[in-house]
Amino acid sequence: MADAAAPLPPHVSQQLAHLEHLGDASAFAEQIHALIPRCPLLENFSSGEVRLLVQFMEVYRAGPGVEIIREGEGGDFMLLLVEGAVEVRKRDRWNTPQVMARVEAGRTLGEMSMIDGEPRFATCVALDTVVLALISRESLARLIVEQPLLGAKLLMELVLMLSQRLRTTSARLLGLIDETPGASLAGNAAELT
Amino acid sequence: MADAAAPLPPHVSQQLAHLEHLGDASAFAEQIHALIPRCPLLENFSSGEVRLLVQFMEVYRAGPGVEIIREGEGGDFMLLLVEGAVEVRKRDRWNTPQVMARVEAGRTLGEMSMIDGEPRFATCVALDTVVLALISRESLARLIVEQPLLGAKLLMELVLMLSQRLRTTSARLLGLIDETPGASLAGNAAELT
Repeated sequence: MADAAAPLPPHVSQQLAHLEHLGDASAFAEQIHALIPRCPLLENFSSGEVRLLVQFMEVYRAGPGVEIIREGEGGDFMLLLVEGAVEVRKRDRWNTPQVMARVEAGRTLGEMSMIDGEPRFATCVALDTVVLALISRESLARLIVEQPLLGAKLLMELVLMLSQRLRTTSARLLGLIDETPGASLAGNAAELT
Repeated sequence: MADAAAPLPPHVSQQLAHLEHLGDASAFAEQIHALIPRCPLLENFSSGEVRLLVQFMEVYRAGPGVEIIREGEGGDFMLLLVEGAVEVRKRDRWNTPQVMARVEAGRTLGEMSMIDGEPRFATCVALDTVVLALISRESLARLIVEQPLLGAKLLMELVLMLSQRLRTTSARLLGLIDETPGASLAGNAAELT
């Protein structure tokens, strides 16, 4: 059950004030470990490593329809979806939200902004009651100092995830460029080697 | 001058056998440190950290026209371009190599394959005499174990670089999708939050 009195970490309190804070993720260690077969971020983590990692995570709950991440906002945290499903929406050139994907438990959201501090690329809305484990940039920094090998392992998984997404996105971009009259490879994907 | 007798690290010897091996990068520490203003990977590294890092790098030289990385090949290393310039080429749907970019000293090549072991996305050809500092997946793993904070710092920079590239590539993809009749956001960029 939620501890309504659990204090929000100050650096994320504003953006997550509309979610129910369930405290740190220690109580969810087994549930998070059970997600591993569906969780690219943690696929190489042992249960001991998960037990260490959850000490650096905070857990939140949100009801259906709640906006968890908003396109264009800043944000210094990523979220692991522990329960429930989320819809990812992005505004098109006419400012109309388009559904990009439905994301299920085990997947992560918001990695890019946690890392680079740039605005959120898309909006994430809870489709049912969702439970989310949050890692902030600050807790990642603390993890690296206090548990450097575990921190490096998490970073390695993030690099791997981003690399694979970059390949997928680049392949799709190059496919579209091939099909688009006047579009050109030049200036694109300089570093995609 | 090259030490022609310097042994090639066994795990990269085949793919780099046509390059001149100059030994480990310790002798290049000052030159690599001087690259920092033009080097996204090392922009937050102190000179002391560079001196540590170079012990995990091997240096190679190649003449103009030499293929350094070949599209489609496997590869478990990344390269920091220390001197010279490189042209990045990718084959289009008609299998014709297209020039994507010219890359100058300070930039890195091949990060994605080092991390994920997937085939190289593009070909890199030396435009003049180039000097390259190589980090292999194996030496990155050793760095993380022997110097965990420095390893985590390098990984953090890699995550940041990949994240920014993913944003750029995704924005370009979404721009093209907007312009392309029949193309849709759905199924794209699910994780680009």
